[in-house]
Amino acid sequence: MNITCKKIELTSAISIVMKAVDSKPQTPILSGIYLKSEEGTLELHATNYEIGLVVRIDADIEAGGTLVVPGRYFQEVVRRLPGETVSLAHDLEDMSISITSESASFKLRSMPANDYPTVKKAPGNIEFTIKDNTLRSLIKKTVFACGTDPARPVFTGCSLAVDGTKLTMAATNTHRLAIKEVVFDEELGKIKLIIPSRILGEVLHTMSSEIPTDIEVTCSHNAISFSFENLFMTSRLIAGQFPDVHNVVPSSFTSEVLLSTQGFSSAVDRVSLISRSNNYNIIRFEFVGDSLHISSNSPDVGRAEETIPISKEGPDLSISFNAQYIMDVLKNIDSENCRLSLGKNAYGAIAVREEKDNSFIYVVTPVRTQN
Amino acid sequence: MNITCKKIELTSAISIVMKAVDSKPQTPILSGIYLKSEEGTLELHATNYEIGLVVRIDADIEAGGTLVVPGRYFQEVVRRLPGETVSLAHDLEDMSISITSESASFKLRSMPANDYPTVKKAPGNIEFTIKDNTLRSLIKKTVFACGTDPARPVFTGCSLAVDGTKLTMAATNTHRLAIKEVVFDEELGKIKLIIPSRILGEVLHTMSSEIPTDIEVTCSHNAISFSFENLFMTSRLIAGQFPDVHNVVPSSFTSEVLLSTQGFSSAVDRVSLISRSNNYNIIRFEFVGDSLHISSNSPDVGRAEETIPISKEGPDLSISFNAQYIMDVLKNIDSENCRLSLGKNAYGAIAVREEKDNSFIYVVTPVRTQN
Repeated sequence: MNITCKKIELTSAISIVMKAVDSKPQTPILSGIYLKSEEGTLELHATNYEIGLVVRIDADIEAGGTLVVPGRYFQEVVRRLPGETVSLAHDLEDMSISITSESASFKLRSMPANDYPTVKKAPGNIEFTIKDNTLRSLIKKTVFACGTDPARPVFTGCSLAVDGTKLTMAATNTHRLAIKEVVFDEELGKIKLIIPSRILGEVLHTMSSEIPTDIEVTCSHNAISFSFENLFMTSRLIAGQFPDVHNVVPSSFTSEVLLSTQGFSSAVDRVSLISRSNNYNIIRFEFVGDSLHISSNSPDVGRAEETIPISKEGPDLSISFNAQYIMDVLKNIDSENCRLSLGKNAYGAIAVREEKDNSFIYVVTPVRTQN
Repeated sequence: MNITCKKIELTSAISIVMKAVDSKPQTPILSGIYLKSEEGTLELHATNYEIGLVVRIDADIEAGGTLVVPGRYFQEVVRRLPGETVSLAHDLEDMSISITSESASFKLRSMPANDYPTVKKAPGNIEFTIKDNTLRSLIKKTVFACGTDPARPVFTGCSLAVDGTKLTMAATNTHRLAIKEVVFDEELGKIKLIIPSRILGEVLHTMSSEIPTDIEVTCSHNAISFSFENLFMTSRLIAGQFPDVHNVVPSSFTSEVLLSTQGFSSAVDRVSLISRSNNYNIIRFEFVGDSLHISSNSPDVGRAEETIPISKEGPDLSISFNAQYIMDVLKNIDSENCRLSLGKNAYGAIAVREEKDNSFIYVVTPVRTQN
């Protein structure tokens, strides 16, 4: 290989694929980035067997070829190069890659390309195209609700259910549940799978382009992949049966509350300063007439309280929650006001929704307290 | 106590004094901030017996008094308050402080003020006034050269020597030494002391005002204190004898080199990517004619090299250093070019200076290598 490319493009490509390079990889070769150059393109591959990433950038190819470079060193070297273009030349004899840019010259030991498990597109049962902002919204509004307990792997991912024209993404840790739906114009087919939350986080971070783009999604029963213009990402799935989320949403509510998302969020953030010091992070909500009184108590630290205006239809209710579960959803509500749907007593789950959009619902079960 | 003050001023005062509140304090009372209000002023004290800090802000005092609030909670509560003003009221009966601002209301448990070791100004042997930018430069250009080995406490601080009109600050870890001098118009007296590097770091961070201000320094043989307009900081000193730093500076050099600080710094930063992976972070400098060839080798990783232009008077020299010791000083050189003074062989210490200012000198001993 003997090529030249733009430093800024190479730096960005490396930083994307490095997300699939673990700091303590399973085998030494996985500490590397696989490089392949041909026909005006440099392709970078990285994988940890859980996630696989491929990024393509333009390059002037004098001689094509493949090799594996040490990932972390390659990243640090390229990032610090002085010039705007980078030349990469593979020296097969001493198994090294020269990296040169203006006055700076590096030689890094390379690894044999044949040993690398390159990232390949697997055939899918279902393929569809989705706008990046739609996919972003699906992920952002659900992934935060995932569980973290590795003993219950099903809850550490988001469920993706495709059924006809409807695509539903959902996540739960059994105490709270987030569901977001999108309806497509055409039939997509039928599949249910569970995507690891970490991968969805990477998808979110990678979709940073300001121009709306189309993303091709390919699903099979053991892998999902996302193709952007210059980027391909594939992920293993979580095996298991995700609970039927629609059964968890209460069929009816007793009161409806409308309040300012920002005002609610700030007040809960403040009052939870005190609740964080008690074991269950318990915060109390008293919906009385046109007011919501939020309070928390900790014998060791003290007490916090705040009253904010609300508009309510239905009877008053006092109910307690884990403050974190309320904070989490409020960070992901985009509308100026949010809607709370309350049950008839302090033991019933409540729902949080955006002001006008019914495609998202968040259900959270209360904490049972003495008073 | 029953007072009102500006939230922004209280937040800033708390964040300054919190630097003296350890996360695991020696006694519970030291987890608190001591508050004292009288005559239009709220005074905040904090100490960990090593450093003591006092900040004064304006306040509307309805009733004066003293109390101790839990530091971390007080900080988090005040920072998140919604309004622009904060009211603090001490409830002596249930030993608590109410903190209110607009709709938010907190009650935090307080501690008895009499138990708190308030920070006091100790009488000094020597007192002088110094401009903040002069003090900043003294600290910034020396403190980075301190050692970190707690078994040799003398080297974990900066030596401050006052002798007549001359004030010298110096720091060394025995492999490298930084000295910065300031000459005053009047006689200051004579004293030698060692200030813990951590305290000097705090002084640097605290001197953030954009308007040049005067700082009063009071030195005794066991404490040093710095008084700014609304701030008082006192620190214990390190006991012991600091070596005579002027003996360490070579009396003469063989070659003089002038080169771009930025160009030198970037090249060393890049080449040290490779040296970091060898045990002693060794980087090689070859001063040949009008060029400096910088290189580093690591059998496991690879090789880096870069050549930059220099202007040299005197013979050529090849010499090796710990790359970190070179990087550290270059970050603290303010002039566009820097001067290197080289000895007659690869075993002699070199000096690094600013282009025209002789009040600062950095001496670093080379690493002896095979080649």
